[in-house]
Amino acid sequence: MVICRWQFPACTKRGIIPQGKSMSLFSEINEQPERLKSLLSSQRKTAEKIARAIQGRDIDYVFLAARGTSDNAARYANYVWGALNGLPIALATPSLFTYYKKPPRLKNALVMGISQSGQSPDIVSVLEEGKKQNCLTLAVTNEPDSPLADHADFMLDIHAGDEKAVAATKTYTNELMAIAMLSIAMNNEKSQWKVLEKVPGWAKQSLKQNKAIEQSAQRYRYMRQCVVLGRGYNYATAFEWALKLKELTYVEAEPYSSADFQHGPIAMIERSFPVMAVMPDGNVFETMMNALTHLRNDFGAELVIVSNHPDALALAQTPLSIPREIPEWLSPLVGIIPAQLFAYHLTLAKGFDTERPRSIHKVTETR
Amino acid sequence: MVICRWQFPACTKRGIIPQGKSMSLFSEINEQPERLKSLLSSQRKTAEKIARAIQGRDIDYVFLAARGTSDNAARYANYVWGALNGLPIALATPSLFTYYKKPPRLKNALVMGISQSGQSPDIVSVLEEGKKQNCLTLAVTNEPDSPLADHADFMLDIHAGDEKAVAATKTYTNELMAIAMLSIAMNNEKSQWKVLEKVPGWAKQSLKQNKAIEQSAQRYRYMRQCVVLGRGYNYATAFEWALKLKELTYVEAEPYSSADFQHGPIAMIERSFPVMAVMPDGNVFETMMNALTHLRNDFGAELVIVSNHPDALALAQTPLSIPREIPEWLSPLVGIIPAQLFAYHLTLAKGFDTERPRSIHKVTETR
Repeated sequence: MVICRWQFPACTKRGIIPQGKSMSLFSEINEQPERLKSLLSSQRKTAEKIARAIQGRDIDYVFLAARGTSDNAARYANYVWGALNGLPIALATPSLFTYYKKPPRLKNALVMGISQSGQSPDIVSVLEEGKKQNCLTLAVTNEPDSPLADHADFMLDIHAGDEKAVAATKTYTNELMAIAMLSIAMNNEKSQWKVLEKVPGWAKQSLKQNKAIEQSAQRYRYMRQCVVLGRGYNYATAFEWALKLKELTYVEAEPYSSADFQHGPIAMIERSFPVMAVMPDGNVFETMMNALTHLRNDFGAELVIVSNHPDALALAQTPLSIPREIPEWLSPLVGIIPAQLFAYHLTLAKGFDTERPRSIHKVTETR
Repeated sequence: MVICRWQFPACTKRGIIPQGKSMSLFSEINEQPERLKSLLSSQRKTAEKIARAIQGRDIDYVFLAARGTSDNAARYANYVWGALNGLPIALATPSLFTYYKKPPRLKNALVMGISQSGQSPDIVSVLEEGKKQNCLTLAVTNEPDSPLADHADFMLDIHAGDEKAVAATKTYTNELMAIAMLSIAMNNEKSQWKVLEKVPGWAKQSLKQNKAIEQSAQRYRYMRQCVVLGRGYNYATAFEWALKLKELTYVEAEPYSSADFQHGPIAMIERSFPVMAVMPDGNVFETMMNALTHLRNDFGAELVIVSNHPDALALAQTPLSIPREIPEWLSPLVGIIPAQLFAYHLTLAKGFDTERPRSIHKVTETR
């Protein structure tokens, strides 16, 4: 018999968890506050050291390679380092390095790879080329003894602990935290570390909705497709939420910037089509509020909204709230948590396996 | 009465075209060989002038802004200029310029915008900032008298003629041609212009499949969702094909690199799920062939494949062929054509309006 470590109606009431089955996913979602705290307290000095190395070089832009969940963390870096550190980011196209064998010139670039396992050969090959071209290279990974770390001048260990679930959760939030830490370190803004220290508490608060989200998820038992909208810092959150839905619930969830969505794909929306959106208070709130109000009023869209703004929460059939005081740039670290819980409970509602999604493996060795 | 200018069974046999209704989309798809030829013959000198200006500056990377179909052309530039010109490309995040008002430092960047109409305020704002930071700025547009052109040091007019259909076709292929022309001009490879001159003929040859594609499209009358796979140069084609399907047929078509697809989304595939793929002969052919064979054999996937390789065409339930001799790097200019015809005929098969897709407009003024 397996004993559930958390309140888990699907196994206690319905007894559908077979013997010997682990429950890593729910456990790892719940570990996040603690893992964020551990990263923050253990790696600040490393982040500051890396920041000094970056400042010591004439860096014009960042050339960043990542795949899957880590690529969504790269999307966050694109906005945060762009807006707060003035650093443009070129997202690498790994096939140029592997299949075409024609890597671009990387003059004055910081060459960086993000990978939970540090194993993906295509991501490693980008760092290898960066070294060959005498660039500063940086690995952000959960495996300090991985090929990716071996090929980097500097390594930031995201300290998420062993991730057993196939669907990544705690490594994603810790990758975002690593990016936020490097941003603060590069700007040398000592006071901002205090704000970062509040993130684990906000994450903990967001986890408290677990019961309510379990109930809300039932309504989407028969949902087969949806879109997920976000913009600015939370463009990343839209992609990551969509990825969790696809991996776990097999819903065809397509992520968009709310701006791109209006350039064509909106045509596909039918009455009562489900739209997920991440739209905390901040610079893009108003434009997203306009877009979502239009979708609700003129298309009868079904809205599941992650926000800390009362107007957005009131607009949704299914509101998922995050604490009011989170600054917009840190909202992706917390906003993904109710989205993870939503995907988790929807997986159970649909009768699927949260631990062994079909057809995927923990480490995908793409070239 | 409206007289159809092309063989068009849906209107001649079934008489469903109402009075006064234009048929721009089919006309514009068919104009492509001629428009490609016109761009090539009229803008070569301009492309060479722009290339000299780029070579005269110390350019480390390209900072490129675009949306919708033009963003798919930007994806092509990412691979072509990366592989053939050694130029890394950072795709701009326009909201940093508009909503956040925190544009990054653009040191040693070529700042570029691609836009059919040259109107989108967010794309214009990126060029404006580029000028302010003393970067070299370049506009690629179909409207020489547009705000985008006004803000650029150099302008390449894509010469596609007036585009009336809401779904962009000829402006896409001409944007790709403009990117290919600039690539050749930057490398000063005189002999390559001769290869480029063959593209209009290949495009014409691909259009000849119209009747066969009309028949093939019937099979997908009830398709509601699909994925579209491509990699390398044709990553762009996958995105553009998916966009046409979404805009015109309202099918939820999600584009992926075949590598990213394996990092999670493959979980969503069920038996007989439809997969579209663009995989001409070339450097990524083998890896795509492996992926698609796996999808066909192990998932029973339904395959619609654009290729010039007999093995790929034999693998598909619905093969869409392009001429054998096209070099891989130019295949996106031709490979999108059968995909456009497929989307067009599927729109008719589903009984939708090819000229007035619901909910979208020709010029989308996002900020």
